[in-house]
Amino acid sequence: MSKSKLLIKNPLHPDGAQRDILVEGNRISAIGEGLVTEGAEVIDASRMAVMPGLVNCHTHAAMTFFRGYGDDLDLMDWLNNMIWPVEAHMDEEDVYIGAKLACLEMIKSGTTAFLDMYSFPHGTARAVDEMGLRGNISYTIFDQGNSKRAELDKRNMERYLEEFKRYTDRVSFSVGPHAIYTVTGPMLQYTHDFAKANDVLVHLHLSETKGEVDNSIKEYGTTPVRYLEQLGVLSPNLVLAHSLWMDSEELQILADHGVACVHNPASNMKLASGYRFKLEEMWSKGIRVGIGTDGTSSSNNLDMFTAMKLTSFLAKAWSGDPKAGKAKDVFDAGTSAGANILRLDAGKVEVGMLADLALLDLDLPEMTPCHDLVSNVVNSANGSAVDTLMVDGKILMRNRKVPSEEAILAEAREYTERLFAKSKQKK
Amino acid sequence: MSKSKLLIKNPLHPDGAQRDILVEGNRISAIGEGLVTEGAEVIDASRMAVMPGLVNCHTHAAMTFFRGYGDDLDLMDWLNNMIWPVEAHMDEEDVYIGAKLACLEMIKSGTTAFLDMYSFPHGTARAVDEMGLRGNISYTIFDQGNSKRAELDKRNMERYLEEFKRYTDRVSFSVGPHAIYTVTGPMLQYTHDFAKANDVLVHLHLSETKGEVDNSIKEYGTTPVRYLEQLGVLSPNLVLAHSLWMDSEELQILADHGVACVHNPASNMKLASGYRFKLEEMWSKGIRVGIGTDGTSSSNNLDMFTAMKLTSFLAKAWSGDPKAGKAKDVFDAGTSAGANILRLDAGKVEVGMLADLALLDLDLPEMTPCHDLVSNVVNSANGSAVDTLMVDGKILMRNRKVPSEEAILAEAREYTERLFAKSKQKK
Repeated sequence: MSKSKLLIKNPLHPDGAQRDILVEGNRISAIGEGLVTEGAEVIDASRMAVMPGLVNCHTHAAMTFFRGYGDDLDLMDWLNNMIWPVEAHMDEEDVYIGAKLACLEMIKSGTTAFLDMYSFPHGTARAVDEMGLRGNISYTIFDQGNSKRAELDKRNMERYLEEFKRYTDRVSFSVGPHAIYTVTGPMLQYTHDFAKANDVLVHLHLSETKGEVDNSIKEYGTTPVRYLEQLGVLSPNLVLAHSLWMDSEELQILADHGVACVHNPASNMKLASGYRFKLEEMWSKGIRVGIGTDGTSSSNNLDMFTAMKLTSFLAKAWSGDPKAGKAKDVFDAGTSAGANILRLDAGKVEVGMLADLALLDLDLPEMTPCHDLVSNVVNSANGSAVDTLMVDGKILMRNRKVPSEEAILAEAREYTERLFAKSKQKK
Repeated sequence: MSKSKLLIKNPLHPDGAQRDILVEGNRISAIGEGLVTEGAEVIDASRMAVMPGLVNCHTHAAMTFFRGYGDDLDLMDWLNNMIWPVEAHMDEEDVYIGAKLACLEMIKSGTTAFLDMYSFPHGTARAVDEMGLRGNISYTIFDQGNSKRAELDKRNMERYLEEFKRYTDRVSFSVGPHAIYTVTGPMLQYTHDFAKANDVLVHLHLSETKGEVDNSIKEYGTTPVRYLEQLGVLSPNLVLAHSLWMDSEELQILADHGVACVHNPASNMKLASGYRFKLEEMWSKGIRVGIGTDGTSSSNNLDMFTAMKLTSFLAKAWSGDPKAGKAKDVFDAGTSAGANILRLDAGKVEVGMLADLALLDLDLPEMTPCHDLVSNVVNSANGSAVDTLMVDGKILMRNRKVPSEEAILAEAREYTERLFAKSKQKK
């Protein structure tokens, strides 16, 4: 069977020029002026801009159920009294429905791939598979020193690795030890070895709060990054969500081992975890930095445009330097660096890359005038500027319409009600 | 002539209940379940939420021309080499076109009223008048100790006060001494007396940067608020944009005099002016706090949803307290407190209030689920959730369409090109 052909005519590129893009199958096969291709479906993008799809490097997709539930509370009050009592009643079907809502939100705001950590990985995987996005889904490890749970986690890692083969190439598997205060040192080492042997990512929350660092010093005699170094688990497979409370020497250790860091500005701000994410210093040391939204329970949306704006503005604000967090660099973090971290041949509008693309409406006040497309994307627009989204060469949204959206919203509302009713009954 | 009647059926209110709203003429005349009115135009809002229109308490509307032009630079480099050389070539027609683009952006993101400061006030006033919004437009005073310029400013204040009578009630006049480093003490006193005699607002940038405070101590022997107190120009007419670098005693002085403060989080962050806006302390002292976007040259959009989110998240982040900047309080700052500062009988969905209302689409992922409407508005949604906007009882946007939008965008692009071409020629 011959490959499908799709010709995007005249979109504006970040350099300010208009060039056609030819997509054959799931990849970009040509870029240039006046491309002509027989038998290609044509999209007129004369009043649109093109950009690589955004890559959300840390989220908990199914937590959409908790959007706006229990804001403005202290962390432990929120977890103990609001989130955990409801989560205890979630099953795979709930996760599937919550993750579908998350996928819909991501599609509508220009995200083409994400790294996830939550329970019931098949629930999220099914949602990703069905919705057409790319998802790397981490099996959450949370043994808390319980050896039975650790054995179960070890068996599950093997099981899910195998079972995930049933999904399309867009769905990947990874292991997600939750944090150094919920997973033992030996289990972190096991996870590291497993990831190396099977060539998958390790997805870990690290140095999210000052309290975590203090506790690490108390429990392990040193800071989180040095503790991981002592365990011998630092590698280019490792992706550290938050990476907020780290000193310069720790950043150098991460750089030396090729570890990737993910900035979650909305969550860090809203939960008051801290705000001094060392973006410029990480970049200057050559660390790969991705951007994430974290879950909607703490962010409260999955709009990567907002995450990029917060990344840029926050870097300037706390450092006192308006030249920090430049739009161009932040744009790269949200696209090409994220794709690199997720090991995707994507994140750039270039020949040979996977066709994971967003087309933006230029006929919006927030995109007018357009002195600098990248600035308008990072500083001015939000996810609703996305008109058309393509993943793996397939169009998931056009004219801001996702075919299944009404059904997904209705189902999400129904499941939210059911879940919260369940948790109230059983209290 | 009998008043026009408009019945909004079944919108969701912030308390989670659905109630009809009857608008007669330019005011809300009834709120309740199952309202029936003969001869009323009916809007079916069963799948929408209602909220008061947002009030943008500090902006420079016509600066839309500079969106994305010269980001990521040091302040003086940006002003001297990017902004001022172009501004020097602007005329009233440019201001009118730039302000129309700003009005369009505000309408599309739920703002119904704003406080502005820029040159050529008639340009902005004409745009507001024509676009149907409410605008309070400050005549900018910038005498820099030049007595000729001061005399001209005095004459202009009288002249514009008179000339503004030609506009509808939606357009108000105020005086805008730019800052304490560009306007002399005697001129600040003159402005204060003028505002008192004519019952108009005084709109002043104050304590925006650490440098401004240091300079005030050097030049006037004390901090900005104390300097204003010594001049005797503190009053409930006074609105202070930024209000960022103030100590607790200064806040108490402002509270004692009923002065209003405006928070501009996006601008403060992007220009690295500072981030410790003392929101909770101001509230606890009873200071009226409004929210502003500042101009698009420094913010880079006019979306008050984003401004509210930044207000809430930033308050939590720097104070380390997740209970700071609660969604409900920030929502009030963006609506009722703003309306109070602009002296509008608006900012609440209550009988007797001006019908300045936004209807939000509930069928959006970022509004789903809806545990708490106010949280979704402040923390999750952006301005594109606004489906319908009404000001003074008149519908300016429905189904996200503003009748004149394509023409406004085209004209703004044309004028931007012309303006930047002019400034290049004459360099």
